[in-house]
Amino acid sequence: MDSRPAALHSVGVARTGAGETVLSRVVRVLETFGSDVTTLTVSQIARRSGLHVATVSRLVAQMARHELLQRDGRSVRIGVRMWELGSRASPTVGLREAAMPFMEDLHAVVGHHIQLGVLQGDEVLFVERLAAPGAVINYTRIAGRLPLHASSSGLVLCAHAPVDLQERIIAGPLTVYTERTISTPRRLRGTLADVRREGYAFCQGHIHPDATGIAVPLRDSHGAVVAALAAIVPNDDTARAQIPALLAAARGVSRAMAGHEARRA
Amino acid sequence: MDSRPAALHSVGVARTGAGETVLSRVVRVLETFGSDVTTLTVSQIARRSGLHVATVSRLVAQMARHELLQRDGRSVRIGVRMWELGSRASPTVGLREAAMPFMEDLHAVVGHHIQLGVLQGDEVLFVERLAAPGAVINYTRIAGRLPLHASSSGLVLCAHAPVDLQERIIAGPLTVYTERTISTPRRLRGTLADVRREGYAFCQGHIHPDATGIAVPLRDSHGAVVAALAAIVPNDDTARAQIPALLAAARGVSRAMAGHEARRA
Repeated sequence: MDSRPAALHSVGVARTGAGETVLSRVVRVLETFGSDVTTLTVSQIARRSGLHVATVSRLVAQMARHELLQRDGRSVRIGVRMWELGSRASPTVGLREAAMPFMEDLHAVVGHHIQLGVLQGDEVLFVERLAAPGAVINYTRIAGRLPLHASSSGLVLCAHAPVDLQERIIAGPLTVYTERTISTPRRLRGTLADVRREGYAFCQGHIHPDATGIAVPLRDSHGAVVAALAAIVPNDDTARAQIPALLAAARGVSRAMAGHEARRA
Repeated sequence: MDSRPAALHSVGVARTGAGETVLSRVVRVLETFGSDVTTLTVSQIARRSGLHVATVSRLVAQMARHELLQRDGRSVRIGVRMWELGSRASPTVGLREAAMPFMEDLHAVVGHHIQLGVLQGDEVLFVERLAAPGAVINYTRIAGRLPLHASSSGLVLCAHAPVDLQERIIAGPLTVYTERTISTPRRLRGTLADVRREGYAFCQGHIHPDATGIAVPLRDSHGAVVAALAAIVPNDDTARAQIPALLAAARGVSRAMAGHEARRA
């Protein structure tokens, strides 16, 4: 039993300045880090987050005490503990474990980047990637994001997303990466219908002129699309030949996920 | 410029009841989740964290608003956003990217579990794992931990850790998993010296009678040991034959990490 007086609990979520909670400041500090900037100083965090230096200084000290951040002299980075807390019970762990053997097989056969993405907000978030050294250019990183309309994985996820999300994406803005990027609502709507009918997204040069993204949906045991499996291959005549291998792998992953669910039930 | 009055910043780290900060409560909530329990109710979180139900209820609502947690009816789980914030700038990302191609090669050749572990606190934390379906039993999970004295990866990390950490581990307690687990300070001290001299840890049946762990150190460009690369293979006569492949892979990963550092500099 919890024997502390009730009054102490009522401040469990403390609000600080301008109605902002401590938690939202913590999140703002964490958000200043990215795959391109893994190390920052306190004043850089303050500048990027819009928080006062003194506030950041105190928050960083506290977060470092809990190992959510890691200090090395003046430089601050994300702590391994933060990764651990986010990873060990992540809803994507089961998906990743089911997909990984098939991703490795594809990687060995296709010889290019193989990646696994989920819908997060209005973007695709990549939760796993097998990179081929010297393979074609690829903008994806693990824990990186891409817009739904521009990437093959995003088109697959968008094509099977709730209608209101689809309409929001179709309404734009549709950021242009190359002259092949889908940039009009009409073409996006048509492509989403194609993806649903054909069962895959095939994007030649949509993000980079030299790369083709091919993505297929991964379905759970109820048939709901929970992720996209994609290969990023050179933009040449052989690209289409990879589609059957991806479709076959997607079936394997879905079967493995169903087995995983059955074992947990 | 931050134009808010200074007084607002002084409460950046708000303390709530009994001197405990909001942040430490947030961490306590996150810590209730694990690889075995990915979904909990508010009252289960309260019971496991020792926090009051009302406090947990408010914190969960707040954390869900920031997508650190995810609610589905009464069940609560870690949010994908939490994984993303912890992953995209994680200090282990460079290590993992350098190690992954070599881990895949080993996985193909050895045909068993291949894993990558780092020192975190007084334990080894596994940051990557390639599992072989139907392979020998393995207690490791991604973002899972094992004690240093019991696992091959842990022995490698401990053997190259600062002396005070080594002495703390040697002083015990040394949890016993099987009759082969290292359980005396004298044997542990001797084994750590062996690991440093031979360049690998070879643990037959230390955690499970049927499994052998073989681990080698991964060094950065300064020669410092930053991780352990391990294979978990069946406990039979062929286990020792895997050592050269692991040692060769470790050299490859170190070279890749040096290249990675050079490109970032």
